[in-house]
Amino acid sequence: MPFLEVNETRLHYEDAGTGPTLLFLHGWGTSGRVWQSCLPDLVRDHRVVTLDWRGCGRSDHPADGNTIAGVTADLVQTIEALRIKPTVVGSSIGGLFATELALARPDLVERVVAVDSPGYWPSTGMLEKVHDLRKRLVDDRAGTLEDWVPNWFAPGTGRGLVDWTIRQLLDSGVYIDELFTECTTYEPRRRLKDLAVPITYLHGELDAEIPLEVPRSCAAATPGARVHVLAGCGHVPHQENPRAFTAALRTIAA
Amino acid sequence: MPFLEVNETRLHYEDAGTGPTLLFLHGWGTSGRVWQSCLPDLVRDHRVVTLDWRGCGRSDHPADGNTIAGVTADLVQTIEALRIKPTVVGSSIGGLFATELALARPDLVERVVAVDSPGYWPSTGMLEKVHDLRKRLVDDRAGTLEDWVPNWFAPGTGRGLVDWTIRQLLDSGVYIDELFTECTTYEPRRRLKDLAVPITYLHGELDAEIPLEVPRSCAAATPGARVHVLAGCGHVPHQENPRAFTAALRTIAA
Amino acid sequence: MPFLEVNETRLHYEDAGTGPTLLFLHGWGTSGRVWQSCLPDLVRDHRVVTLDWRGCGRSDHPADGNTIAGVTADLVQTIEALRIKPTVVGSSIGGLFATELALARPDLVERVVAVDSPGYWPSTGMLEKVHDLRKRLVDDRAGTLEDWVPNWFAPGTGRGLVDWTIRQLLDSGVYIDELFTECTTYEPRRRLKDLAVPITYLHGELDAEIPLEVPRSCAAATPGARVHVLAGCGHVPHQENPRAFTAALRTIAA
Repeated sequence: MPFLEVNETRLHYEDAGTGPTLLFLHGWGTSGRVWQSCLPDLVRDHRVVTLDWRGCGRSDHPADGNTIAGVTADLVQTIEALRIKPTVVGSSIGGLFATELALARPDLVERVVAVDSPGYWPSTGMLEKVHDLRKRLVDDRAGTLEDWVPNWFAPGTGRGLVDWTIRQLLDSGVYIDELFTECTTYEPRRRLKDLAVPITYLHGELDAEIPLEVPRSCAAATPGARVHVLAGCGHVPHQENPRAFTAALRTIAA
Repeated sequence: MPFLEVNETRLHYEDAGTGPTLLFLHGWGTSGRVWQSCLPDLVRDHRVVTLDWRGCGRSDHPADGNTIAGVTADLVQTIEALRIKPTVVGSSIGGLFATELALARPDLVERVVAVDSPGYWPSTGMLEKVHDLRKRLVDDRAGTLEDWVPNWFAPGTGRGLVDWTIRQLLDSGVYIDELFTECTTYEPRRRLKDLAVPITYLHGELDAEIPLEVPRSCAAATPGARVHVLAGCGHVPHQENPRAFTAALRTIAA
Repeated sequence: MPFLEVNETRLHYEDAGTGPTLLFLHGWGTSGRVWQSCLPDLVRDHRVVTLDWRGCGRSDHPADGNTIAGVTADLVQTIEALRIKPTVVGSSIGGLFATELALARPDLVERVVAVDSPGYWPSTGMLEKVHDLRKRLVDDRAGTLEDWVPNWFAPGTGRGLVDWTIRQLLDSGVYIDELFTECTTYEPRRRLKDLAVPITYLHGELDAEIPLEVPRSCAAATPGARVHVLAGCGHVPHQENPRAFTAALRTIAA
């Protein structure tokens, strides 16, 4: 059964393979499908769970609970329902969720891999930029995504992958826009010293959304944290270079 | 749970917020997603229900019941199952369904907002045009939609919104084509004098599918009906200018 | 209810009409939606079942069972659950599934219509080509499909149909890539002499994926088999010329 019910919300997930468990959390507005090219390799010797978090993909798109705390609460219930203690691999805001989950409930998490994850959003100008982004998403969601999403990928990425990503974003709900505003004030660095779970920041060298300075600064604030840079990749290395991403993940989770 | 079962058909809907209830009915072949950019504003002080009607979106695509009477019967059961008495906001053929529902069961409807709604299809040549349209939809559905759908939007609309609409149409079923032929002979004007529910015709100034003459003629036939014109919009103002559409709806439903 | 559970996998199907039963099996990676333009005609006097087989469309995308034997086992359970004895119409690899089902369980199948079906894959070079294809699908699934899929259609096919097909392929799972490798060694011809169910090879004249030599060679190996060529069509005649395809199917299944 590919659905589970948490906090009165039906979430879609896929669950395959046996072995050490990997729980994958996609970025803003996409779905568990973003990991798909990495899975056939990993599923050979892992249990692999991909989740569409609240508001995204084939999960429900409720108007409430679209906060860091809301999604993290869903993750607690998901992990308990599946009876797993996974390495949580989160892309972009998905890495933020993974980090918050590990801070709140280290007993549920084996390891965090934060993929091109914000960690914190540099404060300079972000609040105003996000305010403007949210306005434009209301006025012309399709056009705004067409302007913005190509920037998620390293130069030279094929148009097909960009278009497929935009389509996923359009098919997800709109209530998740709330998360953007909350993220502008997100600052975990003081709390990262208390992180009781190993964390690796896996980051695309050419990420134009979250510069490498962000994971480096977060890693410096976290005992034992590592930074692993993926050459030639932008903000979504698992889609841009699935083979390199999967190999890096195997090294990290070994 | 985002599905309900009516007349042996599973319908997908979303239901959020509290307050006076708005029930949204999309146009031919799209889905409840067409309203999405209007919802974050409205859900703050309304209960908002978006329905994928029979044959569309994530609802079942049955081969039968694809008639005005069939969809209206589904709406009766939907409203009774949800225990609501909503303002029914219908786009294009969705406004026709809302009108017929209000004529048949005024006890279930608080108010009708017919958005660029056919009301009636001018008889000149429509039967022949629709016959030709249906043939072309069989021969080359994707190509026919690519020719036709841009006409739904005011000049200058971005390609992304047009493409997303075509995609939704391709993902819905084909049995709904039957509705086109039925609509060519639809003529409610003699019956509108008996409409016991307030109705507003909210119409895009530049609608090239249903000219403004249609809602004006219908409004003239209906006691107390109003026409509200949205400047600069085409056939789907809720997608072309969600902010202006939502503001107009707030005025109408106040 | 449009889902059934077979072999711990939830499969999506649609089931409409009454009369002699047609079970439609799509090709690699698409879904039951590929048949849609043929259905309004056929459903008038047939029971029509379209199935999204394991890994495709709205069915589950499990990591295992993605083999000829696995899908065929699903078909046995599907047919038994629906209590039908259908004409099985399979496109491309779907025709291979239909053939294997009829060989294994002739009691469940009235007739096979293999539409541009591989039957067997000529051995020259295919193993190497498929090995390369699978690598490219991991490295750049969207780009690889954009290069390949236009070749499925006869020259002159509109871009909208090609794009819609690519989109369906991207939305299906990736574990089904395993089927490609298995197909490279597929050779039914020695066994076709034992086929106890009537079979027709319905094939697009211009199919650039599976040349006409393949169904002709298979038909020569099968007692009573017929070949029916659709002029001007490529690999997916049911999408390229639904009207001609439906007419041919009526002749075959009469």
